Amino acid sequence: MVEMTGVLNPRGTWVADRCSIAKALDVVRTRSAFLILREAFYGTTRFADFAERADISEPVAAARLRELVEHGLLELGDYRAPGQRTRREYRLTRKGEELFPVLAALMQWGDRWENDGGRVELRHRDCGEPVEVALRCAAGHELGPSDLELARKPKA
Amino acid sequence: MVEMTGVLNPRGTWVADRCSIAKALDVVRTRSAFLILREAFYGTTRFADFAERADISEPVAAARLRELVEHGLLELGDYRAPGQRTRREYRLTRKGEELFPVLAALMQWGDRWENDGGRVELRHRDCGEPVEVALRCAAGHELGPSDLELARKPKA
Repeated sequence: MVEMTGVLNPRGTWVADRCSIAKALDVVRTRSAFLILREAFYGTTRFADFAERADISEPVAAARLRELVEHGLLELGDYRAPGQRTRREYRLTRKGEELFPVLAALMQWGDRWENDGGRVELRHRDCGEPVEVALRCAAGHELGPSDLELARKPKA
Repeated sequence: MVEMTGVLNPRGTWVADRCSIAKALDVVRTRSAFLILREAFYGTTRFADFAERADISEPVAAARLRELVEHGLLELGDYRAPGQRTRREYRLTRKGEELFPVLAALMQWGDRWENDGGRVELRHRDCGEPVEVALRCAAGHELGPSDLELARKPKA
């Protein structure tokens, strides 16, 4: 597993009270939040479509959308296509977009372990090749959890 | 955003009832499940340590550990170090280990958006370089969500 180094070793001596994983999960707390985000990445923008396509009730969809807007992952604005009336639409912000690797990693794991390979796949739009989520170090080595260590960051 | 292609275009015409993301989240449903897994990756093996280090109550830890064992992400066995008495320990299975990119992606996002850069980092144990979660296609291109399309998999 991940090796604890320096002041982080052994694990029993410190409290993970500023853990970024926990903080990320304070924002995206529930299955329904992840599914709302999935739909935003799939191009859904309108309230009723989120509820239907994520297969959740409208009250739950409303609560999740509100939280995701409050935390800055989605923004709600008025948009108007030429010749159409104005619509309220939810769109991903940069902060929301950067969560995509989490969803892609869940999809990759679900494909392999819970869904018989899965029925859809992510491909690179330009070259058509299938897409993978990988852990890599700055020197370009591709890694699994046993290749990793956890270290205190040097002070900036 | 991700472009829908082929029979998946437009999004409104199909139901995501076999979605691998949803199926993954049926297994790892809660913040506490992710935090238990974090601890397993950090080397925690004993019941009381999971509860304490993930900062969750013992009943919640017991429920999550049981679910993760039932779904095959952890296994519970008897282990004995030389000269010590036997202990019941939880260890990650291959299925559990392969969830690591999800946690690494949550950490990366949390570092950047919710934690002021974060205080710890994952490094490659051999070369010491920091580790990143990246989306890449089989041809080696590094990608963001806007470079992607979603396609029906060809039948095997």
